[in-house]
Amino acid sequence: MKTYIGIDLGGTNVRVAKVSETGEILASIKSASYGNEGVEKVLSNLKSLVREIPNWKNCIAIGIGVPGPVNTKTGAMNLETNLPGFQGYPLAGELKKEFGMPVFIDNDANVAALAEAMVGAGKDFSSIYYVTISTGIGGAFVWHKQVISGSHGFGGEIANIIVDRNREKINYLNVGAIENEDSGTAIVRKGKALFPQEDIQHAGQVFQLAKQANPDALKLKAEIVRDLGQLFATISCVVDPEAFVLGGGVMKSADLFFSEVIESFKTQSHTFVGDTPFLMAECDEPGVIGAAMLPMSQGL
Amino acid sequence: MKTYIGIDLGGTNVRVAKVSETGEILASIKSASYGNEGVEKVLSNLKSLVREIPNWKNCIAIGIGVPGPVNTKTGAMNLETNLPGFQGYPLAGELKKEFGMPVFIDNDANVAALAEAMVGAGKDFSSIYYVTISTGIGGAFVWHKQVISGSHGFGGEIANIIVDRNREKINYLNVGAIENEDSGTAIVRKGKALFPQEDIQHAGQVFQLAKQANPDALKLKAEIVRDLGQLFATISCVVDPEAFVLGGGVMKSADLFFSEVIESFKTQSHTFVGDTPFLMAECDEPGVIGAAMLPMSQGL
Repeated sequence: MKTYIGIDLGGTNVRVAKVSETGEILASIKSASYGNEGVEKVLSNLKSLVREIPNWKNCIAIGIGVPGPVNTKTGAMNLETNLPGFQGYPLAGELKKEFGMPVFIDNDANVAALAEAMVGAGKDFSSIYYVTISTGIGGAFVWHKQVISGSHGFGGEIANIIVDRNREKINYLNVGAIENEDSGTAIVRKGKALFPQEDIQHAGQVFQLAKQANPDALKLKAEIVRDLGQLFATISCVVDPEAFVLGGGVMKSADLFFSEVIESFKTQSHTFVGDTPFLMAECDEPGVIGAAMLPMSQGL
Repeated sequence: MKTYIGIDLGGTNVRVAKVSETGEILASIKSASYGNEGVEKVLSNLKSLVREIPNWKNCIAIGIGVPGPVNTKTGAMNLETNLPGFQGYPLAGELKKEFGMPVFIDNDANVAALAEAMVGAGKDFSSIYYVTISTGIGGAFVWHKQVISGSHGFGGEIANIIVDRNREKINYLNVGAIENEDSGTAIVRKGKALFPQEDIQHAGQVFQLAKQANPDALKLKAEIVRDLGQLFATISCVVDPEAFVLGGGVMKSADLFFSEVIESFKTQSHTFVGDTPFLMAECDEPGVIGAAMLPMSQGL
């Protein structure tokens, strides 16, 4: 059975695993990533972790997931996001030189999507659009088990899609961008403004207040539902995936709001498209498993 | 050299051509399609046209483009649009039985996009998103020379993407759907309302009035530019194509408005993505050429 090294490199932690071609984790190590200590420290730590994996030399390739968009052609990160110094650094090439095997790189949302498409909720579908609603909102399109990362690594970077022009300017993203309106961060921001007496810490609290028929919470929830329904309808117009797969912390409160999002999606979509299934992500460790699956998705 | 039969079947006309693997039209016949006279008449006419192509038996496969979304799995049209009776009719299967060769079917916008990707403006790119701004607004995503038609044949059916919720209800499409706001039909509708004294017949006249600094025309043009810029920015967020290829009648007036659409796209996109090229469609006969390319794109 073929085995692969999967690396999930974040700003705070890094996880390295040996993964089988069926997505089973055979060995795994977690460590601090030393993201703030610069490229050299991050790399030397990463290299020694790989060498700790039993029989790592028997693996046929390495896959690595990193935060933010990646130039899959040069094997470098486009934006350093949580890993200062890594913008433009040839990370894939450096690991290839070190370990003498092919190295593939993509961003963490794309990698998680690939895990879902290969061995998770999307494994029986020929195409999925993965959407994660968490601190931010990200996604990835996986078609015939290949991530469509896009020309600049921005395929699936849906955070900046405008759902309503008539909102406030929040940050560098477009006015009315979905991430500023309907991510976990955005829902907490709006919840805190509406309910200063409550200690709003996560999106689920807003949906709970709506469940208790609080009129302001119901109104906010209706806006979120419509925004997200529109986002999914827009994605379907662009690529019409066979299924949506949903991940991210906000989806932990799915039972409090998500059936209404699906209804909203239907009312904003052509009849035929309205039957597209929405599935919950299933992988426990999509970061390392998806990273390990990158080489396989490229034919290795 | 391999040759293919390409069929461009519309509600009014049908064109059948023998096309080489490099996209050259070797023989071609045009006829009325008898779209209003029912399935039997349309098919008997189509079959005799194919038999008129010299040495049609030497062609290795048939590709057919039809109006509206197609179920590429069943080889049938999802909506009959301009061809009454054809909804759900197994058109590809019927032609396969008749001519004893593989038959592939897709909608006309997808087929035109494929022609551009294979032998037209997009031939040097690994992925293109084709957008046609004409009576309606359509599109198609072609990735590694394969059309991503989508699960229900609605991939690229971008007409229904909402660009601004705060518009009028026009028809069955979403309020603020791009087709109702910025297609040729929509621009003429708005132009007629604003300039009843002018005989507005096509979008170019509105852009001409803007060029003459008519304040109402400038305002309308600014809205169109922003809407279209947002549409392209949205598509880039979803799949980040290597290039956009533009077709359709409204693009005949490109010099009067389109550079501003590209600027608007840039202001609504991440910096990296802003350099995505916008190319004008190049194929003279994308309908038959693209149809003929369908089998090739599937490996034949």
